[in-house]
Amino acid sequence: MRILMIGASGTLGRAVTKELEKKHEMIRAGRHGADVTVDIQSVDSITNMYRQVGKVDAVISATGSAHFGPITDLTPELNELAIESKLKGQINLVLLGLDYVKDGGSFTLTTGILMDDPIAQGASAAMANGGVKAFVKSAAIEMPRGIRINSVSPSVLQESWDQYASFFPGFEAVPAARAALAFIKSVEGAQTGQNYEVY
Amino acid sequence: MRILMIGASGTLGRAVTKELEKKHEMIRAGRHGADVTVDIQSVDSITNMYRQVGKVDAVISATGSAHFGPITDLTPELNELAIESKLKGQINLVLLGLDYVKDGGSFTLTTGILMDDPIAQGASAAMANGGVKAFVKSAAIEMPRGIRINSVSPSVLQESWDQYASFFPGFEAVPAARAALAFIKSVEGAQTGQNYEVY
Ligand SMILES: NC(=O)c1ccc[n+]([C@@H]2O[C@H](COP(=O)([O-])OP(=O)(O)OC[C@H]3O[C@@H](n4cnc5c(N)ncnc54)[C@H](OP(=O)(O)O)[C@@H]3O)[C@@H](O)[C@H]2O)c1
Ligand SMILES: NC(=O)c1ccc[n+]([C@@H]2O[C@H](COP(=O)([O-])OP(=O)(O)OC[C@H]3O[C@@H](n4cnc5c(N)ncnc54)[C@H](OP(=O)(O)O)[C@@H]3O)[C@@H](O)[C@H]2O)c1
Repeated sequence: MRILMIGASGTLGRAVTKELEKKHEMIRAGRHGADVTVDIQSVDSITNMYRQVGKVDAVISATGSAHFGPITDLTPELNELAIESKLKGQINLVLLGLDYVKDGGSFTLTTGILMDDPIAQGASAAMANGGVKAFVKSAAIEMPRGIRINSVSPSVLQESWDQYASFFPGFEAVPAARAALAFIKSVEGAQTGQNYEVY
Repeated sequence: MRILMIGASGTLGRAVTKELEKKHEMIRAGRHGADVTVDIQSVDSITNMYRQVGKVDAVISATGSAHFGPITDLTPELNELAIESKLKGQINLVLLGLDYVKDGGSFTLTTGILMDDPIAQGASAAMANGGVKAFVKSAAIEMPRGIRINSVSPSVLQESWDQYASFFPGFEAVPAARAALAFIKSVEGAQTGQNYEVY
């Protein structure tokens, strides 16, 4: 398959790319030093990316940012990062990419455990995760031409544990390679409308 | 209790207000003809509303709009209504209202069944519902001064059935008075972080 991988250079994206490139042609996308440049916060940038890349069998997003901070300090402005990046950025990859995905192809987006198992300072990220999950479940029932859509919800990754441990007391970190399996299931499997929990 | 009720003139809001006004002082808010004028799509308007109203025991939102249409016609621009109104509008009522809610007070927001039981043309609304639900669950664990936060997820209301029936084949409509009970549970009860499903 020809797979467009947004966020290929990230902690999660590297692990997913490493597994999928064994069998598939991977087109790496991101803001810096990738095969194709994209900023998911910009509709024009997403549109340009698809024009450059052309038809693909699968689109994967392993990206999306959010502000972490106490709810009492969260302002509408700080909440915008999750809205513009993790939520709208990922959803716009679907809305603008539909015509570029071949019949029977797929979209796979990334959510995360903290919508189900909340942590202090994580409300903005949880919001974005919940929005993406619900969008995926609903969009799946009316995707055209047999196109499927799923999301993957990883727990904290072992590879990110040193960075995030203090936010996640008592959480069981998972290897990024385990999260990568869920992306393989989404891309090579037949399910749709799922949010694969890698907890 | 002194309760600020946004969307008091709506189908759902009227039913909730009718129950709560039996025991509580209700301050009705909305864009037209209410006790206090607010447009939840504007941060300045929300801030002005709270300045006018002052301290309250509870804030209820029974409002929030979204575009309904086929996923193949959904553009980033059409998706903005749900983002700005149902999602950010409701969340900003919380972020900007925290200092106006008394110790032990509460916020109650509105989601809806179609994040759980999706319908064609409902992906944008489902996205907003899912975002609000996850925000509520996460924000609840770090609200200050014993403030609680919940959401209510009604099925289609019997009172709206004539308008929406064609979108909801086979759904069981619920009386708005039944949905109103969940708002009473949120305001007068002790739970937090819940999304009350009125299905
Ligand atoms: N790490 C974890 O423990 C963990 C756990 C659960 C869920 N997640 C989720 O998994 C996703 C990836 O996390 P990660 O830890 O792998 O992040 P990361 O290491 O920071 O990588 C982010 C990737 O996305 C790209 N990117 C960032 N902003 C972008 C933008 N605006 N437009 C296009 N590409 C952009 C980055 O490349 P450029 O900087 O070159 O653009 C990079 O390839 C996020 O949604 C995160 O919430 C992560
Ligand atoms: N009706 C149903 O069957 C049903 C089922 C499940 C969930 N819901 C949810 O329940 C909520 C209310 O639905 P509804 O059917 O009662 O709607 P509605 O009858 O259209 O009433 C909407 C209310 O919100 C106010 N409003 C609208 N836009 C506003 C804005 N930007 N700022 C401030 N106030 C605004 C309206 O007053 P003004 O026009 O004066 O501002 C009105 O009071 C929505 O979130 C909806 O998705 C409804």
